[in-house]
Order: sequence, then structure tokens, then C-alpha cells
Amino acid sequence: MASYPFLKGHGTENDFVLLPDPDGAIHGDLGVDRVRALCDRRAGIGGDGVLRVIRTSSAYVTDWAGTTDLGGAEWFMDYRNADGSISQMCGNGVRVFARYLLDAGLATAPVRIATRAGMKTVVVEGSGAEAVFTADMGSPKVLGSSQVTIQHHFWSATHIDMGNPHAVAFVDDLDEHGPVGSLVDPPVHDEEEYPEGVNVEFVRRLGERHVAMRVHERGSGETRSCGTGACAAMVATALEDGGSGGRDHDLTYRVDVPGGVLHVTWTTDDRVLLTGPAVVVAEGKTDL
Amino acid sequence: MASYPFLKGHGTENDFVLLPDPDGAIHGDLGVDRVRALCDRRAGIGGDGVLRVIRTSSAYVTDWAGTTDLGGAEWFMDYRNADGSISQMCGNGVRVFARYLLDAGLATAPVRIATRAGMKTVVVEGSGAEAVFTADMGSPKVLGSSQVTIQHHFWSATHIDMGNPHAVAFVDDLDEHGPVGSLVDPPVHDEEEYPEGVNVEFVRRLGERHVAMRVHERGSGETRSCGTGACAAMVATALEDGGSGGRDHDLTYRVDVPGGVLHVTWTTDDRVLLTGPAVVVAEGKTDL
Repeated sequence: MASYPFLKGHGTENDFVLLPDPDGAIHGDLGVDRVRALCDRRAGIGGDGVLRVIRTSSAYVTDWAGTTDLGGAEWFMDYRNADGSISQMCGNGVRVFARYLLDAGLATAPVRIATRAGMKTVVVEGSGAEAVFTADMGSPKVLGSSQVTIQHHFWSATHIDMGNPHAVAFVDDLDEHGPVGSLVDPPVHDEEEYPEGVNVEFVRRLGERHVAMRVHERGSGETRSCGTGACAAMVATALEDGGSGGRDHDLTYRVDVPGGVLHVTWTTDDRVLLTGPAVVVAEGKTDL
Repeated sequence: MASYPFLKGHGTENDFVLLPDPDGAIHGDLGVDRVRALCDRRAGIGGDGVLRVIRTSSAYVTDWAGTTDLGGAEWFMDYRNADGSISQMCGNGVRVFARYLLDAGLATAPVRIATRAGMKTVVVEGSGAEAVFTADMGSPKVLGSSQVTIQHHFWSATHIDMGNPHAVAFVDDLDEHGPVGSLVDPPVHDEEEYPEGVNVEFVRRLGERHVAMRVHERGSGETRSCGTGACAAMVATALEDGGSGGRDHDLTYRVDVPGGVLHVTWTTDDRVLLTGPAVVVAEGKTDL
């Protein structure tokens, strides 16, 4: 067995199988079946997605057109969801991707990474196990409000777009719907407001600029962390607090997710920065 | 990182982290914390349990007294559940353990393996990906009947002891309680009949000597396979069919579990043999 290399890592327990494939020679167009086999938590290695590490100059082997401005980024993050589908970006994944490149000596900080959502720069503070990584998640769009419902219980929710759609609802009790992981079915939401489905964040205030959240991700169910969800939760909370991007100083909130702690900063130039840990726990070979 | 070796494998999707530790020098008494970290499906590698591969002559580093007859077995299967607790034996795990020893050239078939439940011999038929492994699971005890209940729905159930307690209930529809994995809470059972809890198998007949089952394992919830559960399901079904061990010929049934296919044979000398696949999917190093 043991025919190609992999690593496993996570950011706030959003976990990934990394596939070093610098020239695309190992995996070619990386089929759906292999992604599913790798992410299978029982029969495979297990993960929320796959991060293929491939040089931008070789990324033509993927579906990716590579037409966005890459700023000379050497490495392309070829991200796939566990079901084999493609996502533009992943806020927890891009930190793990940067961690791998740094640990392997393939890049220096700040790390520039080409993604399907354009070039992302990941900044690093600290080193080793204590290192924290910050990725620019772009500008939020605040799009009004609607309602989300679980079993005859409804909450008003703010529609925040972080490149993907979010409904952020404030709650008094995060445990109301059972232990983390038990939110299996998607909360009922306004189909006209969210024609392609929605990620729903339930947010509880814990203190000044400090919230906790649970998240139901469309297509995945309840997860232990969602990077864009933490950003949306922060933006919705900051708006309630009277803050916003584009002000005269950056705003930073702590967002506790089931899998750990993230910090989200809304900058004076209306960018949302996501800061958190990134860990690689294993490396080896597989023939999946 | 990357400080000690591991492998990941599974038998009918009952999955394990294997830890080669021939002389016990790497892991010593293998603490609960490390087992939990390894089995964590998000922050670790992920598995239903850990199989440490340690020489019988070095197994004194574990809690194991090693007083049972070992038949000269060179290797001891130091099995731990995902929560760090100890189990005597694991019918799916012992096949994966044998597969590893054979692949690594550390043993030849038939493979004799020391376990906390005594010496087990694993027989192999075929080779490579097609190989199937058979382990002797001992003699069943048939202990009468009781009832199991889920949400006001009740079934009579046969009490079979395979070294651990089982309640086997025949059902018309395996999907009645939702998709596999949704049986979260333990079915209600007779506390006097099962003072230490019970593994509950729901069994549906598919044809002659062919059943499908779902299983709720005490302490683990619904799983994709349970070796002793498949044995208990076979014994209960064979009894209903008028068969038994100790007859003039061996009886073999096919048992479909969510994670694959097992075959169970009840021999003329009243032993239950569990036959199924065993796969190693990855190997590498970790510092968990």
C-alpha cells in the first residue's frame, strides 16, 4: 500500500486531509471518488474537506481558470468539500494550508495563497503550537433580515453575505436544541431570501465583544466551526453594538465556536479578518 | 512534529488507529488522554478505538496480567475504546490487527494473537484486497428473552451473551428509526436483565441464512458494525430457524451491517466464527 502522501490537520476542529501534489502529477484532476474516500471518517482518513497543495503554475490540471489576480502566489489551494464538490474558499482551511507551507519550508510569512476566490494573504503571529494565523475574508454585505425557525420556535436573523449566505440569530440559550452535533436538519428559512440555502448561526453574547455561536452549515449539518460563519456572527453583533467597518478604528470580537476560539476583526477599510489556530496532527501515506 | 508511528484501518467500517509499539518503549502504559486524542475525529486521527501492537513479552507495561493461556502468541492486542476505557476483545479489531501483522511481515497465517480475553487464532483466506479473516469468538450463551422499546414501540428480544450482553430484536423495517446513525439514545431495556447495559441489534431477514442488522452499542451509540453483535444476531436467527451449535454440521449465515458484509458460522463444537474483511488505509507519524 502507501502510494501517495497526505497530512491531516484542523483549524478549530474544522478538519482537512492535505494532499501535497506540487506539480499535479499525483492526482491530476482529483476526482470526486478519491475526495470522498479520503474524507470518509470510517473507511477513509476523515475530514470536512481536502486541501490539495499544488503550484499555481500547475493548477491548470484542475477545473480552475486562474484568471483572478494572483499577486505572484506560488501555491494554489485546491479545496474540495467532503462530498467532492468545489468551494471557492475556506477560512479555517486556508490557515491550515499556510501552516503546512511554513512547516514544510515551502513558503515564508506572510504567505500568499491563490484560491478560487482570488489571492489570500495569511499573516502569522507567534510560532510553533502557539502560532495564530490571520486571513483576510473580504468585505461583508449586510442584506437585511428574515426569520429562521426550528420546531415552532422562531428568531429574527440578519442576512450577512461573506461570499456565501448567512442568517445570524441571537439566542439566550445555545443548548436549547441539545448538545453540539444534534442540529441535524436545516433550520427553516425564507426561500426567497436564500434561494441557494443558508448557513445559520445561533449567537449568544458572553460579554463585551465576546460571543459564542453554534452553526448549521448548508450541506454539512452542524459543524464544530465555520470561518465565514464566525465572521458573519461578528458583523451582525458589531452592528447591533453600533459599530461597523469603515470607522476610525478596527473592531475585534472574540467568537467561541464548539471547536475552539476565533477572533474576528472588522477593519477601517471594511475588511473582515479571521484569526485562529491551525494544527497539523499527522502525516503519512495512503492508497485510498 | 511526527514523533511516533500509526496506521489507520477498519473492518466493515469499524475503524481503528493502530500503534506499533513492539517493546512498549514508545507508549508505556498508554494513557487515556492519548487514546482520546488519537480517536478524536476532528482534532485527531479518528477511530472507534486504538489497537496497540505490542509483544506479549513486553505487555507487562499495560494493566494486563497475562495469566490466560497464550499458546505462545508473540503479539498482544492492547485494545482501547475511543473514550480510553479497556475492552477485552473486538471482533472487527482482531481482524485488522492480524492484517497489519501479516502485511508487516511480523507473523504468518494462521495468526495467533494474545488478547485480554485469551489467545485468539485468526485464519486468512485469499490475499491482498480480497483476503477475508476469520476469528473464533467463543461460545454463545442464550439467556432468555425480554423487551426493548423505542418511543412507545416495543419488540421482544433474545438475550445472547457473547462475552458481552446483547438483545436481538427482529423487525420488519430497518429504516423505521431514520437513517443509519440516527439511533442516538439507547433503546429502553430491562435493567434487571441487563444491569450493565446492553448492545441492541435490530435484525431483518433478507433470505435464507441472510439477515441485515443495525446496532446500538452501549457507550458508543449506533455504529456501522459490531462483531459480537453480528454473532448474536446470527445465533438468535439460527435458533428461530431451528438450528443450533453442537449439531452435525456447521451453520453459516450472512449478516449485512451498515459498514459491509460479515459471515458468521456456528460450529458443531458450539463455537461462533466471525468472518469479514480487514483493511489498512493509511500509515504515517503523529505527535498527538
